[in-house]
Amino acid sequence: MAEEGTLHDAFVDELRDLYDCERQLTRALTRLAETATAPSLREAFELHLLETQEQMERLEQVFDLLEEKVRGRHCEGISGIIEEGKATMQKRFAPGTMDACLIAAGRRAEHYEIAAYGTLISWAEAMGQDDVVTLLGQNLDEEQAADEKLSNLAEGGINHDAADRSNSC
Amino acid sequence: MAEEGTLHDAFVDELRDLYDCERQLTRALTRLAETATAPSLREAFELHLLETQEQMERLEQVFDLLEEKVRGRHCEGISGIIEEGKATMQKRFAPGTMDACLIAAGRRAEHYEIAAYGTLISWAEAMGQDDVVTLLGQNLDEEQAADEKLSNLAEGGINHDAADRSNSC
Repeated sequence: MAEEGTLHDAFVDELRDLYDCERQLTRALTRLAETATAPSLREAFELHLLETQEQMERLEQVFDLLEEKVRGRHCEGISGIIEEGKATMQKRFAPGTMDACLIAAGRRAEHYEIAAYGTLISWAEAMGQDDVVTLLGQNLDEEQAADEKLSNLAEGGINHDAADRSNSC
Repeated sequence: MAEEGTLHDAFVDELRDLYDCERQLTRALTRLAETATAPSLREAFELHLLETQEQMERLEQVFDLLEEKVRGRHCEGISGIIEEGKATMQKRFAPGTMDACLIAAGRRAEHYEIAAYGTLISWAEAMGQDDVVTLLGQNLDEEQAADEKLSNLAEGGINHDAADRSNSC
């Protein structure tokens, strides 16, 4: 009987998925920043791009701790979310509405990562991999903060600007 | 100059995306329930399938409130997440590890929806659509509870069973 995959095998699979996810997001965040109109939103995407690059380095450290080769595996989940964001950017929305849509796209990406990091952290805890938990915990904290920041920008003015424009049409 | 899309237009776009998302998930949740080994996990997926059907009805009420036709639009984001889940289900994992992977897939889907509902609720608030906020808020609460339940099942035993199996290999 062929050997069955263990939690370690599943962990490495998911880690490769997440490594590719972060790589895809470095390109996507650049496009989001270029398309944003509100300076605060553009800055938020640019800051998160820098964080994403550091997050990839932490993931490389996790591969090392597990004595596994640093390698990505095509992340189909984030790919769909990014395609959705690209389709939105091609639409003809008023600037405020487009900013609100970019936030919607960004929050979907953040939540994909929040779920993925949450899973990997709970698996690393069960496997007794404390150093891995610490590294992934730093990434998770950044994703949650990025999601909260986008949410605050939306509710702090961008949504209302977009709604005012809707009402005036 | 062609007219630019408003926040109302973007809202209807996103609502159609989410309606199709829920429809895709009714099929995906059936497969997740069939593949789960732990009875508590199978039941969690089955319960959430029933909730998903009610959520679609609430979305239909939102379309009515906005005087828009009930219609889905292919949701590329959840499609990628579901494809990822299908690929996992085709792998040869030990039963405990497979259950942990099904939770990982389920949590990604829940978080996609949490981001999507969070966005739509904040837009409806900005547009002064209180009845829409209430309906979408009920769906969001259920998605958050489903994510928490999956997380608790993982940390309450499934991950440790999977890790024990890993250690014994």
